Amino acid sequence: MYDLEGLGVKAKKAAESLLAVPDKTLCRALECAARLIRENAEYLKAENAKDIALAREKGKSEAFIDRLALSDKVIEGMAAGLIQVAHLNSPAGKIVYSYENKEQGIKVVKKNVPFGVVGIIFESRPNVSADAFALCIRTGNAVILKGGSDSLRSNVAITGLCRQALSECGIDPNAVSVIEDTEHETAARFMRMDKYVDLIIPRGSARLIRAAVENSTIPIIETGVGNCHVYVDEFADPVKSAEVVFNAKTQRYSVCNACESLVIHSSRLKDALPLIAERLKEKKVEMRCDGRAYAAIKNYEYLAEATEEDFYTEYEDAVISVKTVDSLKEAIDHINEHGTRHSESIMTENGENAATFMRDVDAAVVYHNASTRFSDGFVFGLGAEIGISTQKLHARGPMGLDALVTTKYFVEGDGAVRK
Amino acid sequence: MYDLEGLGVKAKKAAESLLAVPDKTLCRALECAARLIRENAEYLKAENAKDIALAREKGKSEAFIDRLALSDKVIEGMAAGLIQVAHLNSPAGKIVYSYENKEQGIKVVKKNVPFGVVGIIFESRPNVSADAFALCIRTGNAVILKGGSDSLRSNVAITGLCRQALSECGIDPNAVSVIEDTEHETAARFMRMDKYVDLIIPRGSARLIRAAVENSTIPIIETGVGNCHVYVDEFADPVKSAEVVFNAKTQRYSVCNACESLVIHSSRLKDALPLIAERLKEKKVEMRCDGRAYAAIKNYEYLAEATEEDFYTEYEDAVISVKTVDSLKEAIDHINEHGTRHSESIMTENGENAATFMRDVDAAVVYHNASTRFSDGFVFGLGAEIGISTQKLHARGPMGLDALVTTKYFVEGDGAVRK
Repeated sequence: MYDLEGLGVKAKKAAESLLAVPDKTLCRALECAARLIRENAEYLKAENAKDIALAREKGKSEAFIDRLALSDKVIEGMAAGLIQVAHLNSPAGKIVYSYENKEQGIKVVKKNVPFGVVGIIFESRPNVSADAFALCIRTGNAVILKGGSDSLRSNVAITGLCRQALSECGIDPNAVSVIEDTEHETAARFMRMDKYVDLIIPRGSARLIRAAVENSTIPIIETGVGNCHVYVDEFADPVKSAEVVFNAKTQRYSVCNACESLVIHSSRLKDALPLIAERLKEKKVEMRCDGRAYAAIKNYEYLAEATEEDFYTEYEDAVISVKTVDSLKEAIDHINEHGTRHSESIMTENGENAATFMRDVDAAVVYHNASTRFSDGFVFGLGAEIGISTQKLHARGPMGLDALVTTKYFVEGDGAVRK
Repeated sequence: MYDLEGLGVKAKKAAESLLAVPDKTLCRALECAARLIRENAEYLKAENAKDIALAREKGKSEAFIDRLALSDKVIEGMAAGLIQVAHLNSPAGKIVYSYENKEQGIKVVKKNVPFGVVGIIFESRPNVSADAFALCIRTGNAVILKGGSDSLRSNVAITGLCRQALSECGIDPNAVSVIEDTEHETAARFMRMDKYVDLIIPRGSARLIRAAVENSTIPIIETGVGNCHVYVDEFADPVKSAEVVFNAKTQRYSVCNACESLVIHSSRLKDALPLIAERLKEKKVEMRCDGRAYAAIKNYEYLAEATEEDFYTEYEDAVISVKTVDSLKEAIDHINEHGTRHSESIMTENGENAATFMRDVDAAVVYHNASTRFSDGFVFGLGAEIGISTQKLHARGPMGLDALVTTKYFVEGDGAVRK
């Protein structure tokens, strides 16, 4: 059996030693890792080529290979990302609350501190290794990576350079490690190592995230799955609506903040819907419509009938479902029933309707007259992104460095006893 | 099978309607509940008497009956608590982050919002019903209560009055409900109702909390279990140390922030330890010592030998374990191995040792020259307490109203599309 426990012990020890490492040394380690990644680009590509060869043998799709591949551009992106994170302000150490209880003779200060050991579970996209390393180390956390098995050699190569960077800066290299075993059962055991791991962030498919929710005894932050809606209200501007739906659906298909479903008020089937269809036609987007919407654009070239299942589907493709409603309330209820609490938008010129929608739709990010595609740590000014949380505990929506610290109360007395 | 799903549906609907209820109406409902509780004290005592009679028949201990009993003092405490929470500032609606992305044409605001439906699981202490109702409703959350089965009639009576108060203020009474089924399996099903419940806070025994960690698919906040230490350092003041250990151990035995273990530097066995023993003798506290500590106070009247198991035990009684160490590092390692990440204190006049201890001990609250008994939401200036979190996600240490809100991003554009 793979020695996961040994890995946990070493990571926990590294996390403890990180508490004494000054922030500027952490930054230096990130910059050093960036340099090593640039210097060893050929080595990374060679290791990656072995992963790709095996993936092709297994008959993986070109989209899969594309995510797996470490091109020069992706490698430079990893290096630039490391340097960017080194230049951010760290939230660790920041005082978030203070209180002096004079009657009891104590001073209370609450500060941000690292979690300790963070586990990141992700699919076969090896550049995530470098991103996760940067964000975790900068906030003083050790990190254990469990990447998709098809990217194992690439992940080991990247983190090998990161470990070398830590060593060169006098930091315990076990602050980053990769689970090198690819057995399914090992991932399950990892999620129950609450003695050594303080937090798990699963990034990837709905199935992977559900497995973590069901099985983990370690606190987790759910990320990613996005069945996002744009609702075109009774008082929507049709031209703005067409532009926003087009952007939200087609700017990039494979992302979690793409629009998968259009919800439209019945009074706008005749003017707004045809305009939207006109725009979507440019990218040959299939529109899977309920009866009333179908009838309203029956000559649309890429038309289909929607089933109930369509309204639960994250297509990640040039397909959009269309649902007709007769009221704002019906739109909100439909979205709360079918959505994944990620990003939801209303198109309306009516301020009251916008406010009601934004208050009552239960999602990490709610929009008024804007594309769902904006849900992103960089766009929101966070300077980095470890993922987009769709849960409510600790972090919600795009997560930057702040999501990787917890808090701790520090209390000072002079022999103070409770009265 | 008990209709838990029906309860969940109603609670979720109530939570949605709460979003539109102004804060001042929520406060009025709490004040109304306080009035009804005072007016119906005799009714509450009569219902409680039935619970107590059944508990006695089952042979429950007097300590158990004491926690179960609704005395006039406890009833007045519930009413006063409701009014106190009505007078706090609500964190709901507060803006915690804002950012304007001019290039993309959007304004981003992150606000505190209610979780939705909160589940509170607790043992047979019916006054928790009123406390949980106050804290959840004030922050705009609906709450489902699962109390110990021996307190069922009392819980139903208290929440009946709370439901009446909600109705009188025009609020959906399903914003508070009690799981009236006492089957063990119902509690297990409750922890997996993630479609309806957004957060679970288990309050009670280590066993109850572990069951929630193992089985819940709903995010939980672990509370309560406290195997707390006071470490008397090489540079400790012996008199202050004796006072603090005495207070931390004996001020109240049954609480989670009581000191259960004394860790002492070997150089202080001859002066500090006898002073501490002298003080603990007043309350006949049994000292379970390792070999060196045993030898140092071998004439102490209530002396015993410690086993390794003692160092993992939360006595909640007039018993303390004593561990001798030869260095600060050994003390920190011992506490991190045996502690429950609750509250840990160092007695020392050496600032550097204090800082190292506070940085490296992994606990919600760390103290310097102060009693662990201070860990409390009221003492820390939070104005209320829903429990003491010993986990790192979302809330850590004493939790006030802040722990009962999550955040949500609100984004405004004018037809903004992502470039």
